[in-house]
Amino acid sequence: MSEPTFPAFQDSYSEWAGQCYGCGRMNERGLQIKSRWEGEESVCRFLPGSYHTAVPGFVYGGLIASLIDCHSTGTAAAAAYRAEGRPMGTQPELRFVTASLHVDYLRPTPIGEQLEVRGKVEEITGRKVVVATELRVGGEICARGRVVAVRAPESMKA
Amino acid sequence: MSEPTFPAFQDSYSEWAGQCYGCGRMNERGLQIKSRWEGEESVCRFLPGSYHTAVPGFVYGGLIASLIDCHSTGTAAAAAYRAEGRPMGTQPELRFVTASLHVDYLRPTPIGEQLEVRGKVEEITGRKVVVATELRVGGEICARGRVVAVRAPESMKA
Repeated sequence: MSEPTFPAFQDSYSEWAGQCYGCGRMNERGLQIKSRWEGEESVCRFLPGSYHTAVPGFVYGGLIASLIDCHSTGTAAAAAYRAEGRPMGTQPELRFVTASLHVDYLRPTPIGEQLEVRGKVEEITGRKVVVATELRVGGEICARGRVVAVRAPESMKA
Repeated sequence: MSEPTFPAFQDSYSEWAGQCYGCGRMNERGLQIKSRWEGEESVCRFLPGSYHTAVPGFVYGGLIASLIDCHSTGTAAAAAYRAEGRPMGTQPELRFVTASLHVDYLRPTPIGEQLEVRGKVEEITGRKVVVATELRVGGEICARGRVVAVRAPESMKA
């Protein structure tokens, strides 16, 4: 499936937020994931590198956790902008960080195929957004995630 | 604090288990973490790269999750060997994978200093080991983790 051409959540991040190893478009060493709405769900598709191995043939769990983490904080930001009725990237910037991350690894995730992470906003209250995710390969669910995301504290701002 | 010279858990992994991006000594692109017993706790120290950024000045959560994940599966293997009264690396190989991972991010983790992850075995029963971890920077706890590790299924073996 080809990627859509309209901007991803992460394309709207400021230079400050765009440095993240997982999702920053400005981090040349990073994963540079892209997330977009598809109806009420947010979707991120990612092809692991051949070196993202757990044991030969399978994706290592840390990459799966990283995708779920950054896709969820991106989804949280997108949902918060939507709730305020304004486009992503407008000021003040709504940037979220992870308060807690939970991943259930349901089966070994095969390497070499595109991973699809789909997120749903479970809760959005004040400075907190809860996002539930499923990670699939070829339609089969390999992992489930749940992230509690909170607005980035002022102490993280330069 | 300099690293001890005695072998780490991961130094005993087979060629099969040694490919992991997080903890395999044979993965040239990977993190190559090292874990060792210090008394009843297992310890891993890791210096993030400058590119392991969340926002400038702080470590991205996916790296923290990856360290906790691989340090915990390594601790699970070490604990399982110890429970069987035989050295790591002897046959049959006891290799663990993650059934579930939970991380609470307590405060932003500053980048540029060594991270220390300490693990305790909470439970060891049959094919399952539960490991609780704390991640510190300069003595301050920045994250807590809990991993349920299970023996790698036969389907993951080449």
